[in-house]
Amino acid sequence: MSDAQPASGERYRRGLAQLEKMGGESVQSMLGNIQDLSPDLARITVEFPYGDILSRPGLDLRSRQIATVAALTALGNAPVQLRAHIDMALAVGCTEEEIKEVIIQMAVYAGFPAALNGMAAALEVFSAREKRGV
Amino acid sequence: MSDAQPASGERYRRGLAQLEKMGGESVQSMLGNIQDLSPDLARITVEFPYGDILSRPGLDLRSRQIATVAALTALGNAPVQLRAHIDMALAVGCTEEEIKEVIIQMAVYAGFPAALNGMAAALEVFSAREKRGV
Amino acid sequence: MSDAQPASGERYRRGLAQLEKMGGESVQSMLGNIQDLSPDLARITVEFPYGDILSRPGLDLRSRQIATVAALTALGNAPVQLRAHIDMALAVGCTEEEIKEVIIQMAVYAGFPAALNGMAAALEVFSAREKRGV
Amino acid sequence: MSDAQPASGERYRRGLAQLEKMGGESVQSMLGNIQDLSPDLARITVEFPYGDILSRPGLDLRSRQIATVAALTALGNAPVQLRAHIDMALAVGCTEEEIKEVIIQMAVYAGFPAALNGMAAALEVFSAREKRGV
Amino acid sequence: MSDAQPASGERYRRGLAQLEKMGGESVQSMLGNIQDLSPDLARITVEFPYGDILSRPGLDLRSRQIATVAALTALGNAPVQLRAHIDMALAVGCTEEEIKEVIIQMAVYAGFPAALNGMAAALEVFSAREKRGV
Amino acid sequence: MSDAQPASGERYRRGLAQLEKMGGESVQSMLGNIQDLSPDLARITVEFPYGDILSRPGLDLRSRQIATVAALTALGNAPVQLRAHIDMALAVGCTEEEIKEVIIQMAVYAGFPAALNGMAAALEVFSAREKRGV
Repeated sequence: MSDAQPASGERYRRGLAQLEKMGGESVQSMLGNIQDLSPDLARITVEFPYGDILSRPGLDLRSRQIATVAALTALGNAPVQLRAHIDMALAVGCTEEEIKEVIIQMAVYAGFPAALNGMAAALEVFSAREKRGV
Repeated sequence: MSDAQPASGERYRRGLAQLEKMGGESVQSMLGNIQDLSPDLARITVEFPYGDILSRPGLDLRSRQIATVAALTALGNAPVQLRAHIDMALAVGCTEEEIKEVIIQMAVYAGFPAALNGMAAALEVFSAREKRGV
Repeated sequence: MSDAQPASGERYRRGLAQLEKMGGESVQSMLGNIQDLSPDLARITVEFPYGDILSRPGLDLRSRQIATVAALTALGNAPVQLRAHIDMALAVGCTEEEIKEVIIQMAVYAGFPAALNGMAAALEVFSAREKRGV
Repeated sequence: MSDAQPASGERYRRGLAQLEKMGGESVQSMLGNIQDLSPDLARITVEFPYGDILSRPGLDLRSRQIATVAALTALGNAPVQLRAHIDMALAVGCTEEEIKEVIIQMAVYAGFPAALNGMAAALEVFSAREKRGV
Repeated sequence: MSDAQPASGERYRRGLAQLEKMGGESVQSMLGNIQDLSPDLARITVEFPYGDILSRPGLDLRSRQIATVAALTALGNAPVQLRAHIDMALAVGCTEEEIKEVIIQMAVYAGFPAALNGMAAALEVFSAREKRGV
Repeated sequence: MSDAQPASGERYRRGLAQLEKMGGESVQSMLGNIQDLSPDLARITVEFPYGDILSRPGLDLRSRQIATVAALTALGNAPVQLRAHIDMALAVGCTEEEIKEVIIQMAVYAGFPAALNGMAAALEVFSAREKRGV
């Protein structure tokens, strides 16, 4: 039963709108994979990060994506999400150079392996966008 | 012998200048503690993070501090450095509200304990600045 | 402005009720510390973890606390929250022996330092409860 | 010489028996991969986690697996072992719904990327079991 | 009952002998703190790390301590154990300079905050030894 | 512009020489992948870790590689770099047995999943070397 709440409330709608505003196609495709197994986690991921947090005023979206790319590069445990957020950082106005600078800077705070893996993720995202003609 | 290179090269001077530009008194005080034990690590910390990386063009200092506050909040293993960088983030133009937003956002990517500990660090920095009359 | 939403919605009330059911005095005291600085993070911490997640059906509260004590012992970055959740685990029916077993087991998955630090946290909680006469 | 102790002592036998009781085929297959390179690590993995720790009284096997699935989801550095322990959690009586709840709960303590990666691991395990007709 | 196995077997004796050989007074004092709460974890910590692993042939004790100081500096989640192992590294023949080099090197692999915190731990150990007249 | 400094200074030359001395073909091949995207990060990775740190006197190369293999096994977030450093450890005189001992020891400090993943990395490196006839 717990996996059966409707994905239709105000927070969900606000989250979806926020995802679209941020170019979050890659997040939505990632959620698609777990939609059948856990519609609840898919719904919660739209509601809380996007509906509650990333849609808050007080910090511009470009800064929010810089923060997320930095954190995921430093943590190093979520390459799929890192690629999604590099893509979204570009969508909200970061340049490729800025993203590369954030990743290089993580060598200082999380070590070179984290930065090198982050740059490899950026390489994949930039190449995929070039192929898509973005 | 290895702990005896002079702290006087171009990278060191550039690093010191960068630290001053970024309001890095708290970093310098932290380095003071280890200066006697390892003059080399103190020197390298000025040269590489500040002289080589944070002084690079390509990303504004406000964005650089947002990236660092995000990463250190998410990693959660360096409360002293997190406080130093919150202080420096304010010095280069971030508002207290923006820093709080970055920290709240980390609840999404690194969990609530990381965000709550980050906010406790911000609380200490903001209070100390109030006492100093900044 | 972003730090000014009223802490009065349905999720907040459900979260508070859940916190009381789980004996979460230590969480509420921890939130008290950041209430003045970020009423929003205090409110969100009641709404999301307690109102949205821990109040879900599908898993009993004792198992939920075992999961949290295990995760916080393994991550090792949040001693305050670990102590709060050991306290709550006892409040929802775990025995001291069960908690010690969970912590010892983490030596296997996260190493001995994590387990030893977890046991030190348990020691503090058990002693504090003895003094309170619980 | 150090890699040549016989895998035949009491702890090893108790560990193997524990592994069988817990449905640990996936662990044994994982150990098979390193058996030739390091028979010692393979033997120690049976002896210590299974022979010494998981066979201890004081906590039921279902709770032990909930603790391990929580910790490995939160740490996020061992997807192969996470899948093995999700499989074993089902073997000792956890339901799929309970495992999904543990994983969703980790969004609170370790962030959404950890929970989403954990759910992807669960998806693989549940699908593989369906194919095997379990 | 689970916390009542005698600390008297062959592995325990071998572990204690290994601890003495490695100058592990600081580990024994750390274990003293949890001895009353969990005699089992205290016993297991002697038996497994010291009796089973660190007493293995195949790697000299100096190299073993370098490995542990490196890992604990990089992980950054166990300052008490890091100090104990810096002390033991000196006891088995590492020089202070070698330990400082290991810690500085961790700036590359785990970032500067980890290295700076590691050096602060070394500073405490070296000072304490000087006071003890070692 | 920031990605355009020439890779020709003294630190770069010293770093390249150090990489060759340490048998760092696998690092150079890894850097090749990101060379086009970020010539700066490729250059910095030669200059700082190899030119500044690993070429320091005060610790022999064999001990330096033991420290790095230990740290990367414990952190568990950089399998590509771990394999490169296992390869370099063999190149500077570590035996396969010594590397296996370092990895087994990490079960104590970072848990069994970290050690098992480290051993899987060693297995890949040892097999690849056998094929290359090293």
